[in-house]
Amino acid sequence: MADDLIAGVDIGGTKIAVAVATPGGEPIARGSFPTDARRPPDEHMAHAIAILEGLAEKHCGRLRAVGVGCAGPLDFELGVVISPPNMPRNWRQFPLRSFVKSKLDLPVAFDNDANAAALGEHSYGAGRGYSDLVYLTISTGIGVGIIANNQLVHRLGEGGHVTVQPGGDLCGCGARGCMEGLCSGTGIARRAQDYLSAGGSSKLCESLGHAGQVTARTVADAVREHDELACAVWRETVSLLAIGIGSIIALLAPQAVILGGGVAAGAGGLLLRPLRDELNERVRILRMDEVEVLQAGLGADSGIYGALVLGTHAFQTVRT
Amino acid sequence: MADDLIAGVDIGGTKIAVAVATPGGEPIARGSFPTDARRPPDEHMAHAIAILEGLAEKHCGRLRAVGVGCAGPLDFELGVVISPPNMPRNWRQFPLRSFVKSKLDLPVAFDNDANAAALGEHSYGAGRGYSDLVYLTISTGIGVGIIANNQLVHRLGEGGHVTVQPGGDLCGCGARGCMEGLCSGTGIARRAQDYLSAGGSSKLCESLGHAGQVTARTVADAVREHDELACAVWRETVSLLAIGIGSIIALLAPQAVILGGGVAAGAGGLLLRPLRDELNERVRILRMDEVEVLQAGLGADSGIYGALVLGTHAFQTVRT
Repeated sequence: MADDLIAGVDIGGTKIAVAVATPGGEPIARGSFPTDARRPPDEHMAHAIAILEGLAEKHCGRLRAVGVGCAGPLDFELGVVISPPNMPRNWRQFPLRSFVKSKLDLPVAFDNDANAAALGEHSYGAGRGYSDLVYLTISTGIGVGIIANNQLVHRLGEGGHVTVQPGGDLCGCGARGCMEGLCSGTGIARRAQDYLSAGGSSKLCESLGHAGQVTARTVADAVREHDELACAVWRETVSLLAIGIGSIIALLAPQAVILGGGVAAGAGGLLLRPLRDELNERVRILRMDEVEVLQAGLGADSGIYGALVLGTHAFQTVRT
Repeated sequence: MADDLIAGVDIGGTKIAVAVATPGGEPIARGSFPTDARRPPDEHMAHAIAILEGLAEKHCGRLRAVGVGCAGPLDFELGVVISPPNMPRNWRQFPLRSFVKSKLDLPVAFDNDANAAALGEHSYGAGRGYSDLVYLTISTGIGVGIIANNQLVHRLGEGGHVTVQPGGDLCGCGARGCMEGLCSGTGIARRAQDYLSAGGSSKLCESLGHAGQVTARTVADAVREHDELACAVWRETVSLLAIGIGSIIALLAPQAVILGGGVAAGAGGLLLRPLRDELNERVRILRMDEVEVLQAGLGADSGIYGALVLGTHAFQTVRT
């Protein structure tokens, strides 16, 4: 008789990852393929499902439930992708949940990428052992996932849009001074570009000269070389992040704050160390020695592990 | 045979309220007495317990569990009152939970006042029917209670200390620009006083002349009389509150935000209407027509109703 297996799918703007695990959540096999803006979402999802079915067959198992994490925003009730800024445009309004259900006829749990990654870190990564944590993904945008009392807070909040600079720069959402608009990879690059346009001299000019582009990564690299302009941008980034994350800490009193996403992973201690110091300085109402500020433990895999956690939840819900 | 009864105690700086309810949570009887700074906390609690036992006897019932809400901060694990700024000083370090347990030998659930009030509004007040809500008490300080998926988020967060004016006025907690420091009753009065000290003319000078004091109430009264200085303070208050509450909404995407506490109750629509408008203007990432902004439904009773909810939880935990 075939063993029960859980499937996970993590849908991002760059790639789509799939994995299968035991009902207890032990990962067994995985795969991935690039997201292709020229192909429609149903082709991607059909391909993902084909890989999953192949993995199940190879491991003599039978898929019993699916967890899907996808770049938000999503419509939770309808199971539809709304208008994720980090996905190809043809994913807008894609009825993700009903498509997966029509192909697999299994229980499907789905959630946005930040929530999925928070679950992944909680069960498999840096968040193991914490009942209350906040996960931040700092990449093209900023997403926040919240675990309270070992449960995901399932609302589709957009914690990247807490205000960190009232009246500040306009964010893509239409509001001013959002953490995402200022401190995401895009935001960091834009602020550095603004400093350069205002006539600042910097090693960053070189990366521009070679047909390059200022990115959060080139800024971080220049900080490592003690470039003055880049250091000013970085200090400002840390300070603004500490305002936003400090507010989230004051509100939720988590045991741990976990930083994931490309920008945080690329910067490592360059971001983590000064951010910890700044949070200790700023947050006074709680004991900051009771709040760990940690790097994500799973790197780019937080999302696919989280999709497996979603899948195990869907499986358990059906069996109880 | 005696019926099972649940007891609730709501401990505040002005009064202590008690109530008994059925295990299903239907309130049966209540009482209250003033908090007296000259008497120690154990006398207050012994008196509260005596009233509860009297109410139980009168209704031929037997107390089976107790819920206690108390002005925070509290030490949750130890069950101890830490240093609540809004309670007489002799309550500091009072071992609340162990005292109640020693007198009643019953299951005790305890939580801070904002969390208790959030539970009260959720079960009995303006929050009925919402699975996800945020309750704010705006009084001497600002407290925040969060319900997610019909569960209280039990961490002892201090949502009053989200940053709404980076680098702004020093808050009592030691940080700068906290919502509580600027927008609590104390904060509103202080900002009005600052405007007056800077030489502004206002109807508020009259209340000062008569040996009075500027309070959030006198400011609100002057706003109703279209006093220019008071209106400026009020607009600023609404704007700062909208930054803080807007960030909380973006993060948690609640279905409802409920405003309680003396300042919110006293101001009524004077606060609620412009705050709604400002939130609609500021929060762009979520659909604000899906977030209700409501006045608390239970007025000063949110806390004692919440204590009863805590009591029913303690009762259910024991029976399962």
